Amino acid sequence: MRILVANANTTEAITALCAGAARAAASPGVEIVPGTPRFGPAVISSGLENAIAAHGILDLLAEHAGRVDAVVLAVSLDTALDAARQLMPCPVVGMTEAACLAALMLGPRFGLVTFGGTESYRQLVGKYGLSSRLSGLVGVDFTPQRALSDPEGARRAVAEGVASLVAGGADSVVLGGAALAGMEPALREGSPVPLLDGMACGVRMAEALVALRPARARSGPMAPVRGRESAGLSPALAALLRGDAGG
Amino acid sequence: MRILVANANTTEAITALCAGAARAAASPGVEIVPGTPRFGPAVISSGLENAIAAHGILDLLAEHAGRVDAVVLAVSLDTALDAARQLMPCPVVGMTEAACLAALMLGPRFGLVTFGGTESYRQLVGKYGLSSRLSGLVGVDFTPQRALSDPEGARRAVAEGVASLVAGGADSVVLGGAALAGMEPALREGSPVPLLDGMACGVRMAEALVALRPARARSGPMAPVRGRESAGLSPALAALLRGDAGG
Amino acid sequence: MRILVANANTTEAITALCAGAARAAASPGVEIVPGTPRFGPAVISSGLENAIAAHGILDLLAEHAGRVDAVVLAVSLDTALDAARQLMPCPVVGMTEAACLAALMLGPRFGLVTFGGTESYRQLVGKYGLSSRLSGLVGVDFTPQRALSDPEGARRAVAEGVASLVAGGADSVVLGGAALAGMEPALREGSPVPLLDGMACGVRMAEALVALRPARARSGPMAPVRGRESAGLSPALAALLRGDAGG
Amino acid sequence: MRILVANANTTEAITALCAGAARAAASPGVEIVPGTPRFGPAVISSGLENAIAAHGILDLLAEHAGRVDAVVLAVSLDTALDAARQLMPCPVVGMTEAACLAALMLGPRFGLVTFGGTESYRQLVGKYGLSSRLSGLVGVDFTPQRALSDPEGARRAVAEGVASLVAGGADSVVLGGAALAGMEPALREGSPVPLLDGMACGVRMAEALVALRPARARSGPMAPVRGRESAGLSPALAALLRGDAGG
Amino acid sequence: MRILVANANTTEAITALCAGAARAAASPGVEIVPGTPRFGPAVISSGLENAIAAHGILDLLAEHAGRVDAVVLAVSLDTALDAARQLMPCPVVGMTEAACLAALMLGPRFGLVTFGGTESYRQLVGKYGLSSRLSGLVGVDFTPQRALSDPEGARRAVAEGVASLVAGGADSVVLGGAALAGMEPALREGSPVPLLDGMACGVRMAEALVALRPARARSGPMAPVRGRESAGLSPALAALLRGDAGG
Amino acid sequence: MRILVANANTTEAITALCAGAARAAASPGVEIVPGTPRFGPAVISSGLENAIAAHGILDLLAEHAGRVDAVVLAVSLDTALDAARQLMPCPVVGMTEAACLAALMLGPRFGLVTFGGTESYRQLVGKYGLSSRLSGLVGVDFTPQRALSDPEGARRAVAEGVASLVAGGADSVVLGGAALAGMEPALREGSPVPLLDGMACGVRMAEALVALRPARARSGPMAPVRGRESAGLSPALAALLRGDAGG
Repeated sequence: MRILVANANTTEAITALCAGAARAAASPGVEIVPGTPRFGPAVISSGLENAIAAHGILDLLAEHAGRVDAVVLAVSLDTALDAARQLMPCPVVGMTEAACLAALMLGPRFGLVTFGGTESYRQLVGKYGLSSRLSGLVGVDFTPQRALSDPEGARRAVAEGVASLVAGGADSVVLGGAALAGMEPALREGSPVPLLDGMACGVRMAEALVALRPARARSGPMAPVRGRESAGLSPALAALLRGDAGG
Repeated sequence: MRILVANANTTEAITALCAGAARAAASPGVEIVPGTPRFGPAVISSGLENAIAAHGILDLLAEHAGRVDAVVLAVSLDTALDAARQLMPCPVVGMTEAACLAALMLGPRFGLVTFGGTESYRQLVGKYGLSSRLSGLVGVDFTPQRALSDPEGARRAVAEGVASLVAGGADSVVLGGAALAGMEPALREGSPVPLLDGMACGVRMAEALVALRPARARSGPMAPVRGRESAGLSPALAALLRGDAGG
Repeated sequence: MRILVANANTTEAITALCAGAARAAASPGVEIVPGTPRFGPAVISSGLENAIAAHGILDLLAEHAGRVDAVVLAVSLDTALDAARQLMPCPVVGMTEAACLAALMLGPRFGLVTFGGTESYRQLVGKYGLSSRLSGLVGVDFTPQRALSDPEGARRAVAEGVASLVAGGADSVVLGGAALAGMEPALREGSPVPLLDGMACGVRMAEALVALRPARARSGPMAPVRGRESAGLSPALAALLRGDAGG
Repeated sequence: MRILVANANTTEAITALCAGAARAAASPGVEIVPGTPRFGPAVISSGLENAIAAHGILDLLAEHAGRVDAVVLAVSLDTALDAARQLMPCPVVGMTEAACLAALMLGPRFGLVTFGGTESYRQLVGKYGLSSRLSGLVGVDFTPQRALSDPEGARRAVAEGVASLVAGGADSVVLGGAALAGMEPALREGSPVPLLDGMACGVRMAEALVALRPARARSGPMAPVRGRESAGLSPALAALLRGDAGG
Repeated sequence: MRILVANANTTEAITALCAGAARAAASPGVEIVPGTPRFGPAVISSGLENAIAAHGILDLLAEHAGRVDAVVLAVSLDTALDAARQLMPCPVVGMTEAACLAALMLGPRFGLVTFGGTESYRQLVGKYGLSSRLSGLVGVDFTPQRALSDPEGARRAVAEGVASLVAGGADSVVLGGAALAGMEPALREGSPVPLLDGMACGVRMAEALVALRPARARSGPMAPVRGRESAGLSPALAALLRGDAGG
Repeated sequence: MRILVANANTTEAITALCAGAARAAASPGVEIVPGTPRFGPAVISSGLENAIAAHGILDLLAEHAGRVDAVVLAVSLDTALDAARQLMPCPVVGMTEAACLAALMLGPRFGLVTFGGTESYRQLVGKYGLSSRLSGLVGVDFTPQRALSDPEGARRAVAEGVASLVAGGADSVVLGGAALAGMEPALREGSPVPLLDGMACGVRMAEALVALRPARARSGPMAPVRGRESAGLSPALAALLRGDAGG
């Protein structure tokens, strides 16, 4: 089984980090294929950058259509998730989506902790229709950069965020964002509730979907498009819009 | 890995049917352990019977606590799901819950088809907080009994139900209820959207959770109870309430 | 008129306490019949125990079917309320449900104060579809046991909880849980908003329903079951499932 | 106990009809006091008329403040219900509100049948926060006038409306509007689910609230106003706004 | 273009204040017509007064029906807004409604700051169906009276309220209530997000609607009434209920 | 005042059509500036194409930043609306958003009619938080192409859609999609409720916002970004991400 770990920004180091976390979480025999867009924001830290990045990640996915068994979006806002599902002939899972769904199986309500602002996560959980299962969001006052230079302080701050979410009724906590990827083992011991890592959940959910072999939709919003014309897009993406390939 | 397939009614034939579907869906090396309650309704076809059955399935689970790696509730209403999670030291997944969560990863909205009334499913999806993702419910006018004697007619009726759900905006359809277990392969070819089988989804989601090794909650509603007294319960269940075992 | 005051746990002292509160609240001529389950948790303080207790309270109710005019569930989580309604040929009211409904008639929003955690009440109000009318929940840091040894301190703590709910927009406050039963008169004078006692509301709502003589549902989820088989249940409960007796 | 049955329109025949229904439903010893506004619409059949009628019914209530033990609003849209609660020193219940709350105690979902349009009821149930408990609304194609000349046809039409609501999942049905008052006994026998009459429910809920003796709010939106000046209002209403009387 | 600025209370000074703000905000050539009700509360500071005031503002509007091109309700609770729309042959806009709608075009979520309690605004935003776009409400501890004697302190307090709303996720802030009318210019410089003034938004939205020339509804709840009788209402209002004028 | 009418697809004929509709609706003295993206789908008829088109329209907007007073997105799905607001130093309005907001000022509930599927509109209204104000959606079985060859048939089909929405409770109807632009005058006479044209509403709402001069957000999700690096984007867009220009 080949799983594409698709970054939505153009920073290869983040792709590598996420691909490493994916490999650590994957079942034996699963090949992790890292992918980085050819263009777009270096790091996505605003809704504006996220909207621009949709084109880049779809462009990237089009290159791999038909050559991977599943895709995990390695980007905290699950950029262009529904569009990616319509584009690709294989299952596509978002890392934050996967962590939220796993959390749903651990108790009535989950919290989410991340670095920085929480508004985009609040919107994302709302878009997924899961707001009634969300007990709260905590934004830890750390940048990803500062977390790299002070990992111990970052872990302590995240642990405090987890504790405050648990006090607010969380039965589990999603670790939101690539910057928290891989932090779960170090926090696990001290946490009063289970913690969900996006890349680990994404990979395992993708494996489960591949095993379930869901048929591709032939009608409705998820059905592949056909005969659509475009201008200035990559040959691979334009071909998928025309219906020449994939599916 | 050992997964308990726990029926909530006392009809062993249904347990065997579900265990067979689970075995067909499980990864190589996973052992499926069938379980039937010692007491309770023969078949659950009302909210009243479902409420009574909660005790029976928890009694059954208590017997297996510590001896299985995960539990799949093989009952369409996911009887006593949250209580089972609080009781058991391992992941517990409901078959309808699992199918709904898998459906969330296939498109914005899913439908659900079942035999008979749909109200209990509507409530269940609402309790899971997923109503905004549900496009509609269709109750096919077939009893499980009649489906056994007219399997071809049952399949045709379910296929019509799927078609009407797709017309109403479903991107995928959950096959609800044990009586539809195993019908997915026969319907797959003709269906315009992917179909989700509860037992298959339940087993694969349980495997994913086992792989993610979520820590057990130490506080909040999902934390194991301790020091609770009771009267007239089985030794195994009473012991878990006292905190003598499990965990 | 005979009203069954049905406890859901096996502690007879709590049954007696609730029956006393019911008698104090009932109209002249109403007979209060106390009832305690034969088996189940000694005290319900978790969702797990509540799920187990459903069987016990339904077993208890079955013994009284046809011999009482109404039932008040004397348990803060209104254990098995819908199932009890389907089982019994007479009106069934939950004590917390009744207090919430009375509160709806006193202003736009109500609060709820209780001892200990509030999550189970939050879920209960949500299940009743009343979340938009709930201004907030306060869990006072007192156990029922400590309240017995320090009643003055308990009252002061509850009064502080009421004050904080009023500051948050409550037009009335529900006193949640059997441990607060009977506390209303002592708090009344100092409270800026009306307080609702579950047993008093439950008894008066039950009387109102008996006077309205609602017909029993003959179809749908509340209609009595018929011809249902079971194993290991009490003769009375098994008979009602078969439709041999009751309403 | 004296209960004011307060009409919101100026048609005394409707007041008399509602007062008669109230007397038939009341406990022995309860005195029903009929009241009709001095000014306003002859019949309320639009949101515009309902908004105008608020002044008239509050003017009427002010005349009775301190001289009745409870008020039932005898108007299908429960005109000015919250304002009436803030104005009066005694409990105030709306006839549609009371029927909806009684319905909540009979099963998960209720329907509502009325003559003519249903949109104002949909809004009212939404304002009460009960939309998730409402299975559906049916507007029977009958005017109150035609119902008077063809009572048998009206009953048949309402019975058909009830049947269609039951098919849509209603566990009980509220009979909405003064024109359906008193129709319950004739429909009872043939109805598959219990039917709720607004005046009967209103009177019994008012009695229950009187028995519970809720304290009057001393703060928040339901607390009586004081020191408020006005122009052109009746002496009684102006006095209550100044805080000179009532309470 | 003539726009009626309709106050809902009987204090002419407030009408003049709002008319002045409207003139400052209007396009060149727009004539602002101030209007004050003949009867009703001097100032609306409770739900009770708001319910009474509905009659007064509709009485006022009826006098101007057919002689103005649009109406802006110059009252923070948008008193009788839907009824006014049904009554009048021209567009009617509420000042708080208009500010909220303008805020929707500036970002995902808006906050609202006002003097005193916030509950009535919370209800109003909920009635408009906009609760999911509301990030929070802040009630500044100032009376309109004290604001007149300490304008600098009032502005500082409002600015602090704005800051706390921004910290809670507001992308813009509605200045709620006539007492804050005209404060926007002084706060603008120091505010981290855009501020919305009700009268300015109301006038500009009214102008936009006039330009769009929406046809008047001929059916449904917004269609003008015809043939409705009444007692004790002004000749102008009674005539519109009969359908003799307007439209 | 200069208003950019920004198409999100690359078909210049649609840009011209929308610009014409905008000119017809604009106030005297307003200059309409048409804009077409350099790359992207020829026509947006799926969520996939909409996600790709976000980059194209943002690229287009960046070219005009600082040189127009407002932007109207001339695309039925309001592609990249929030991102456009964050990007641009001037107000940005979506054509469907504007029509929905205008509809809110005409009555409690609005409907929406369009050619083809309605699911993307249902999602859009939901994202705007306006679902509770939406009475229904009707997808007329016409392609934009067929409407061009059979305009009379298209109008008749849309009129039937409007009628069915009115029967379902709509107080006004939004004409959704560029293909219905300009159809309002022909439908106006026969429609029982007001109809809202997206381009007309968009232009008038944009004018209102320009007049209100809302300050630009300096913090939160709508604040302009600064110092963001990117790869492969146009110089204008990359410069705005770096904060070198605009605002």
